[in-house]
Amino acid sequence: MQMSLPCVKQPDVITCKAAVAWEAGKPLVIEEVNVNPPQAMEIRIKVVCTSLCRSDITAWESQAIFPRIFGHEATGIVESVGQGVTEFTEGDHVLTVFIGECGKCRQCTSGKSNICEVLGLERRGVMHCDQRTRFSINGEPIYHYCAVSSFSEYTVVHSGCAVKISSVVPLEKVCLLSCGVAAGLGAAWNVADISNGSSVVIFGLGTVGLSVAQGAKLRGASQIIGVDTNPEKGENAKAFGITAFINPHDSKDPIQQVIKNLTDGGADYSFECIGDTGMVTTALQACCDGWGLTVTLGVPKVKPEVTAHYGIFLTGRTLKGSLFGGWKPKSDLPSLVDMYTKKEIQVDEYITHNLPFEDVNKAFNLMREGKCLRCVIHMAK
Amino acid sequence: MQMSLPCVKQPDVITCKAAVAWEAGKPLVIEEVNVNPPQAMEIRIKVVCTSLCRSDITAWESQAIFPRIFGHEATGIVESVGQGVTEFTEGDHVLTVFIGECGKCRQCTSGKSNICEVLGLERRGVMHCDQRTRFSINGEPIYHYCAVSSFSEYTVVHSGCAVKISSVVPLEKVCLLSCGVAAGLGAAWNVADISNGSSVVIFGLGTVGLSVAQGAKLRGASQIIGVDTNPEKGENAKAFGITAFINPHDSKDPIQQVIKNLTDGGADYSFECIGDTGMVTTALQACCDGWGLTVTLGVPKVKPEVTAHYGIFLTGRTLKGSLFGGWKPKSDLPSLVDMYTKKEIQVDEYITHNLPFEDVNKAFNLMREGKCLRCVIHMAK
Repeated sequence: MQMSLPCVKQPDVITCKAAVAWEAGKPLVIEEVNVNPPQAMEIRIKVVCTSLCRSDITAWESQAIFPRIFGHEATGIVESVGQGVTEFTEGDHVLTVFIGECGKCRQCTSGKSNICEVLGLERRGVMHCDQRTRFSINGEPIYHYCAVSSFSEYTVVHSGCAVKISSVVPLEKVCLLSCGVAAGLGAAWNVADISNGSSVVIFGLGTVGLSVAQGAKLRGASQIIGVDTNPEKGENAKAFGITAFINPHDSKDPIQQVIKNLTDGGADYSFECIGDTGMVTTALQACCDGWGLTVTLGVPKVKPEVTAHYGIFLTGRTLKGSLFGGWKPKSDLPSLVDMYTKKEIQVDEYITHNLPFEDVNKAFNLMREGKCLRCVIHMAK
Repeated sequence: MQMSLPCVKQPDVITCKAAVAWEAGKPLVIEEVNVNPPQAMEIRIKVVCTSLCRSDITAWESQAIFPRIFGHEATGIVESVGQGVTEFTEGDHVLTVFIGECGKCRQCTSGKSNICEVLGLERRGVMHCDQRTRFSINGEPIYHYCAVSSFSEYTVVHSGCAVKISSVVPLEKVCLLSCGVAAGLGAAWNVADISNGSSVVIFGLGTVGLSVAQGAKLRGASQIIGVDTNPEKGENAKAFGITAFINPHDSKDPIQQVIKNLTDGGADYSFECIGDTGMVTTALQACCDGWGLTVTLGVPKVKPEVTAHYGIFLTGRTLKGSLFGGWKPKSDLPSLVDMYTKKEIQVDEYITHNLPFEDVNKAFNLMREGKCLRCVIHMAK
């Protein structure tokens, strides 16, 4: 008699559409790509929604690894799981995250850091585990971006780079918690730890800057000054908590002096959300002596060196960096999603555009022109 | 009948010896100087002992204000008090301090800062109150240094720049708490808040660096690595808590790599105690991802700009400055003096030389040649 063995489904290669960046700064091309099965401790995800973040554009404009699939702010549904994965099963709803949490390294176990040693920021366009790609066209590798690559109908991520969320949470909204909104809130709460009644200055009023503003408002900051050279940013920013808007082009005085005048000698906190190292100095100068804290969030396109006069530190200022707002994704994101469902934090308000996948280049254009906050790209719209 | 009025002693101009720096980098000259009476809220002090700090030398070598009387680490006895002074009376023993505490400004009342807005770091060679000097020779002004100018038998300081201490405390020892030893201990305790079991790297093993080491040791740091290019510093440093000594000249690898190897990926804390902005970058690199904290204490002679790659901050490092170790002089120094009298902190051990006032230039030479920690200059020895 023949034994009836249970049928274990082995994931196959998937062929699907992905937006491939073939060259720096050139429009993405929707191509048929092969997506390999997930390897050990990886999961393959059917991407549902992905929003476009400024850092995708920065990398697309300036980095050298091509062809590549960008996108890192995303939600999706688990399609298959690799060997050893017990945390996820087929059908789970997930947020992807561009820095993971292995839960075991010195950083993850420290309780003080989200800079996982195993699944930290991936810059070479490959998977963390084997330094290879899971995408290909005609056998030629297509490289990843930040270990997520969500501008594809299917993608493979390490199971440490995904967070399970409830199936009732709207995937087309919470994709923004995958990077931008979470990064800003975390910079305000985890990194700066803004206190009630304090003064805050934010340089750059994109989604990250406005999320810092929201975080500051929820902490009870009494002054939240937004700085942006785009005059259209001012009005909209008030909805997120900005109490005053400054366009540096409107002022003869240096911007740090304008801020010092407004804040009785300098703000308690300043945030550089532009990705301009030159503005880090201004942000430090805009802070007060004694306890002024500057948080730098941006990824600069040019001049990676931060420069500041030593005296600015000697008189009591601090400069801190923030990557993903200090959130440990698995440990912390569920509570942030929970805050969203309880309407304790705003997320929907950052979505200025919803676009079908084939219009992904339109999203790039809107962001380059400063005409959007977040464009959500619907893979199946 | 004539009324017998009480005789109120009005302080006169005092003529005494002072070590005058006539030109940058040229030996000091012991001169007869006039010391005006203390003005409102000032006190005139008979200096008893003054030690030489590296920053006196840096200013003497590089700054433009001359003729000048240097010296800022000192103890003395109040000779006379100006109008409105109630805190001090003639005969009180005091520590001078180069940043004062008015007790009333935004900084002083914040509970978070020692950067007094009224009596902060004075760089123009004059008194805080009226922007004039109290020293002269033949009617020509001799400028102050850091509002103390202790290389004079008598000096005038703002009453906010002096701290009353018990008359039983040895003045020839505790002058070191007026700057160097206190600055290092405070950087370790107040600014970095070093935790038990942590790893610490100190660049520069002068009095300040060794005081950071002492502070780290008393906090229970498990690794205290000292870095200095002077090979003689290593052995002596152990007495202050250094557990390993590195001479960068002995290593082929970059010093930050040597430290990363010793500390399993980077130290928890690093301190720049040389006054070299270039070393701030190295100190940041020697710290670990995630929570590495670098404290910069030094006053650089050249290149006042601190420069570091943005990525070093993004991966979780923090850069903080420290001026006088974050101590508010009036509020905090008495407890430090108390710790000294209870033998809870070492102070005497930093004194490598005792010199009479006329040998003040010898102290300059010893420090320039790296042959001393602290030279205590006895005004009446």
